[in-house]
Amino acid sequence: MVFKIGLLGLGTVGTGTVEILLNPEGRHPLLSELSLHRVGVRSLSKPRSVNIPEYLLTTDLEEIVIDPAVDIVVELIGGLEPARSLILQAIENGKHVVTANKAVISRYGSEIFDAANEKGVYVLLEAAVGGGIPVIQPLKQSLGANRIHKVTGIINGTTNYILTRMKNEGADFADVLADAQRLGYAEADPTADIDGLDAGDKIAILASLAFAGRIKLEQVYCEGIRKVTATDITYAEKLGFVIKLLAIAARDPHATPEQDLLSVRVHPTLVPKVHPLASINDVYNAILVEGEPIGQVMFFGRGAGSGPTASAVVSDILNIVAVLQMQEAEIVSPVVTHELMSCTHQHYCKIAPMEDLITRFYVRFLTKDSPGVIGNIGTCFGKHNVSLESIVQTGFQENLAEIVVVTHDVLEGNFHQALNEIKSLDSIDSIPSILRVL
Amino acid sequence: MVFKIGLLGLGTVGTGTVEILLNPEGRHPLLSELSLHRVGVRSLSKPRSVNIPEYLLTTDLEEIVIDPAVDIVVELIGGLEPARSLILQAIENGKHVVTANKAVISRYGSEIFDAANEKGVYVLLEAAVGGGIPVIQPLKQSLGANRIHKVTGIINGTTNYILTRMKNEGADFADVLADAQRLGYAEADPTADIDGLDAGDKIAILASLAFAGRIKLEQVYCEGIRKVTATDITYAEKLGFVIKLLAIAARDPHATPEQDLLSVRVHPTLVPKVHPLASINDVYNAILVEGEPIGQVMFFGRGAGSGPTASAVVSDILNIVAVLQMQEAEIVSPVVTHELMSCTHQHYCKIAPMEDLITRFYVRFLTKDSPGVIGNIGTCFGKHNVSLESIVQTGFQENLAEIVVVTHDVLEGNFHQALNEIKSLDSIDSIPSILRVL
Repeated sequence: MVFKIGLLGLGTVGTGTVEILLNPEGRHPLLSELSLHRVGVRSLSKPRSVNIPEYLLTTDLEEIVIDPAVDIVVELIGGLEPARSLILQAIENGKHVVTANKAVISRYGSEIFDAANEKGVYVLLEAAVGGGIPVIQPLKQSLGANRIHKVTGIINGTTNYILTRMKNEGADFADVLADAQRLGYAEADPTADIDGLDAGDKIAILASLAFAGRIKLEQVYCEGIRKVTATDITYAEKLGFVIKLLAIAARDPHATPEQDLLSVRVHPTLVPKVHPLASINDVYNAILVEGEPIGQVMFFGRGAGSGPTASAVVSDILNIVAVLQMQEAEIVSPVVTHELMSCTHQHYCKIAPMEDLITRFYVRFLTKDSPGVIGNIGTCFGKHNVSLESIVQTGFQENLAEIVVVTHDVLEGNFHQALNEIKSLDSIDSIPSILRVL
Repeated sequence: MVFKIGLLGLGTVGTGTVEILLNPEGRHPLLSELSLHRVGVRSLSKPRSVNIPEYLLTTDLEEIVIDPAVDIVVELIGGLEPARSLILQAIENGKHVVTANKAVISRYGSEIFDAANEKGVYVLLEAAVGGGIPVIQPLKQSLGANRIHKVTGIINGTTNYILTRMKNEGADFADVLADAQRLGYAEADPTADIDGLDAGDKIAILASLAFAGRIKLEQVYCEGIRKVTATDITYAEKLGFVIKLLAIAARDPHATPEQDLLSVRVHPTLVPKVHPLASINDVYNAILVEGEPIGQVMFFGRGAGSGPTASAVVSDILNIVAVLQMQEAEIVSPVVTHELMSCTHQHYCKIAPMEDLITRFYVRFLTKDSPGVIGNIGTCFGKHNVSLESIVQTGFQENLAEIVVVTHDVLEGNFHQALNEIKSLDSIDSIPSILRVL
């Protein structure tokens, strides 16, 4: 029995996927049970780097998702529409779906998985997070015995590349971004990456798997790296930290079991140099999972690119084929799906508001060098129960004294109340940086 | 339908496994489809840290593997016999098997998987390599789309702990080993760990999965860390390396496709500090997989211990249950097994002899300080086509000059021929260290 693939999209990842499917030698033998049946493209005449028989191509993507011969639809067009509608239509027509589309899954996952569960088909998305790094399947299968406490990831290659270069070169954000755009490491419109929205989509997906509940994307706090400065990177270095854009999903250790509160967030973070994520540089991604009884386990690799992402797409296809092959052999229609491959949870996770987060902060003030300013800052923090680890005058900038404060674990709400009060002090000129500390 | 577990062994990992099975809340819901049916132990009266109903315990392990009620036998007694016989008997009786026993799988894998394939049952072994780190399942499933080129692992926690301490403390092997034994990080008889045999078992298993062929364990080259000295760690540091016990399985890039030669080996290795494996310290394990098109992907975590290893054991159980559940629903006997969960390859991989390996070397000589000794060494290497990157007189030790040589990539056979000739030179006192360089 050969299973037929309908591929939507022949961009970077689509091309990488076709290259694997057309060159199965030396890969898993199950690839020989697959055939590329139809490929949906935007333009038939565009020159391609892969050699696809012309009769496979079509610009009518809907034709593919309703084609009775197609077993598995692979959605690689990206974006919200028509991706969402095509996925839903494919499911409606009994197709299994493989997608690399984090945006569509993080926004419409509920609708998509409800439809898939009703139809008894699989929707797999290993390629949506971390490129080729196996992390979706481990969370669904290999780590299933654990109570997951926390998932912490560097899951946006563009921002990690920029932060790595800022650190290595002492350069400022705007300069490195411009250069990254020139080199193709950042897009012309870099918003989704730079402002943490791409990482937000991805951590919503990881949180949903790790904590077995749905996540409302609008409850995910996203703060990007635009405000990270060379100055802060230097101070962080002196304090024993590197600055990384972390995506974090964690069960609130202070919540009662009935509350079962999560925090799900993306923000630039001071990471201790000895932490496993501190040495993940350039475009590499890594996802650290912590749970009981496994402790820490980390997955590392290239988070993007044609080859790695295609590897994840094809592994999903193989997983579906392995299960279909079993069911075919039984010659009966499946009544039960493979429970580790499905996403059947329907409740929504409760996400705690950011002001309830307990975290450490790094904050940099520029102050008029009036006597007593350190005392005033310290007093304000103290009044709001914000306990400080250190408060140091680090130097001068244009007649203003620079003061760097690092707090202990504090309630974020308290911290901001204190900060509001400090802002109103006469001696405070500005607060250029507020960063969380891992 | 509840699936029944017959557990063999209630040591560290067995206890961790029972703790998960008896406390399913907050873990994968599929755990509720499991029940602990029988537990085989050596002594019924031994005090236990887990609260198991007494009627589940038995000292008759054979009774468990032939019990018609048992669906899955979990073998955690370790060692070769009776583990091998019990596994085979379980298979013969139609049970699926989960094991953490690298020694039995690396030696008797062929026999065990032949029997399992004939009976249509699964033998899963995630816990046999890397503790809780998911690496077996990724190699079988998530990375299936790739042509794997190389698997490089730090997969023995004891030796990594010893090498890390030697580096941090500048201490000698024997002292650190003694202390590690005192602290329980090394066993009273440390041979299996220290001499690379444990890592050899594990890399044989990883190679078999990565390269889809069986491995004859006696063809795996194993060299341990007994000869690594504080002096070499210091020189390595100066040259930009750390010394790690690496287990490596690689496709020979110089072999023709028809030859399809592998090298599978364990030896202390100079690893460049910038390499992802260089920063894996203490008892942590990591496995780096390289392939096309994924590039590099690395898995990191605790390589041993009750909790992590039990996490892997239970994930294997869950994987089997998910598949059994599908088959149960069909109410027909399975005729086809899940192809990504089985090990069906039957041919043996061809392993190249070590003298055909192409690698870099680090070698340290003690020489009588006679004029021209550097020239003599260089000439001998040159004569045997061993091209040198550097040859440096590093100092004196008790009237002997110390000379450190680092080669380019050379044929191991040529290197040893040259070394034999150099040994016979009058000016050479001894060759304290020969290490390979990554």
